[in-house]
Amino acid sequence: MFSVTILGNNSAVPAFDRHPTSQVVTLDGTNYLVDCGEGTQIQLINYKIRRSRISHIFISHLHGDHYFGLIGLISSLSLLGHQQVLHVFGPAPLRDIIEMQLKVADTQLCFPLHIHHISEAATLLDNDKLTVKCFPTNHRVECYGFSFTQKKLPRKLLPEKAKEHEIPAVFYERLCKGEDYTKKDGELVKNEWVTAPSDPGKRYAFCADTKYDETLLPHINGFDMIYHETTYLDHLRERAELRFHSTTKQAATIALKAGVKKLLIGHFSSKYDTLEEFETEAKEVFPDAELALEGVCYEV
Amino acid sequence: MFSVTILGNNSAVPAFDRHPTSQVVTLDGTNYLVDCGEGTQIQLINYKIRRSRISHIFISHLHGDHYFGLIGLISSLSLLGHQQVLHVFGPAPLRDIIEMQLKVADTQLCFPLHIHHISEAATLLDNDKLTVKCFPTNHRVECYGFSFTQKKLPRKLLPEKAKEHEIPAVFYERLCKGEDYTKKDGELVKNEWVTAPSDPGKRYAFCADTKYDETLLPHINGFDMIYHETTYLDHLRERAELRFHSTTKQAATIALKAGVKKLLIGHFSSKYDTLEEFETEAKEVFPDAELALEGVCYEV
Repeated sequence: MFSVTILGNNSAVPAFDRHPTSQVVTLDGTNYLVDCGEGTQIQLINYKIRRSRISHIFISHLHGDHYFGLIGLISSLSLLGHQQVLHVFGPAPLRDIIEMQLKVADTQLCFPLHIHHISEAATLLDNDKLTVKCFPTNHRVECYGFSFTQKKLPRKLLPEKAKEHEIPAVFYERLCKGEDYTKKDGELVKNEWVTAPSDPGKRYAFCADTKYDETLLPHINGFDMIYHETTYLDHLRERAELRFHSTTKQAATIALKAGVKKLLIGHFSSKYDTLEEFETEAKEVFPDAELALEGVCYEV
Repeated sequence: MFSVTILGNNSAVPAFDRHPTSQVVTLDGTNYLVDCGEGTQIQLINYKIRRSRISHIFISHLHGDHYFGLIGLISSLSLLGHQQVLHVFGPAPLRDIIEMQLKVADTQLCFPLHIHHISEAATLLDNDKLTVKCFPTNHRVECYGFSFTQKKLPRKLLPEKAKEHEIPAVFYERLCKGEDYTKKDGELVKNEWVTAPSDPGKRYAFCADTKYDETLLPHINGFDMIYHETTYLDHLRERAELRFHSTTKQAATIALKAGVKKLLIGHFSSKYDTLEEFETEAKEVFPDAELALEGVCYEV
């Protein structure tokens, strides 16, 4: 299961029961947190997402609505006796900010905290499940999007075919990894005779805060799902430009040009008390657009 | 109207829909915020308390559950176009922490922010409505309680008596301020003949985080209402001592010895999912004890 759960979908000022940016990317039971606006730890409780299952946190930029909840989450994890290593990725000087606040509270964390500064497009994590990369976006301050690429899954065993070729069950796992099988009499059974191709790993990208910028396209091209901010409706194009944000139609245009399968939109301005118009406008350009709603889990 | 509205009544880790410490002291339409745990700005919205009416914020100490929401509230006030001066009082290095976070976000506040460091018992504010003082409490880090003393109200006019003495209505305001009246023929009308004594100004104290400590008593003696933390029930006396917190019975004993009229208890540990036992235990020692419940407004 590869999914994204929205914890906050509002822009800078909380309003209308919408919270600042945070979302949880979940793959096979591990939670990766993307941004951590104020109140994220409370939203995690509200939506019953286990804080202890978070191993990596990715902070796009140091505007408060994207990271003011980080120090509270770290402090609470420590008070709750968290043991596992926690990796946090974000622009400098995130480490100084967190360390200063821990120091004045005389807090000794009970788990290892590693804060990694990011400063350019890079691979941040590469394990047996997925690869996480960051890429710069075009915002008023240094800002990064994050792409999550699931590793290619094993090939699918065709059990009837494997039996037909008299391959022992103990060899099935190696078949799924792509190996051929050689019988005792030397006869070769080619892998593709007894397995089917695996599904390719799925891909999701969080495009952070950004004005309309086509330099994002190579980082998200053909993705299964992307999240792109739409702070404003189309009528406030000029304000969006001025404040390094995007409109509905700009987000949808990026999705269209990148050839992605699905677009989630969020980071709605507190100017708007209802969101229907965001969906309507985005769908005019890109039909597979959907509102990123708090508490909802979207499968990649 | 002199009242206290509770925004958060839990100790360090949010749980059971209880939030970290924050409360609003309201006197004649002005809001004074005491502590500002994470999510305070969202609680202010939830309980329809106007952020723009906050002129002074008092931070007891730099454990995160008492101040992590401050930077978010300040940022939001600025984004909302707040104009009035905001005074914040708290232990050093609060100013450095706030300024660092504003700087990295490249935020220019649109209102004057004055952060005043407190380091000993002192008068922090003295206007025509009230006096606010701070006093040290006994916690693991430097920590202060705050007392709010309403200024003595005007004397009460006795209209029948004033008419009897043929005092013109235009002089009534001066009577309420305590002046005598001299008739045209030189006859003196003594103030106490035509006015009744005013109610004395009411007094409220927030006793912050603290272990049981009788040195608090002189600062809260005879108060109308105090808030005292009760992180633990009586069975965890030793843990309370170790962590510089108080139990139900200790909070109630302080209220009893200080001869206050009413005790509010809060800062409940996340160990406890229900709170009835806190009230029961406190009342065994001090009957006028009440739970500080979120969203509830307590008149002083």
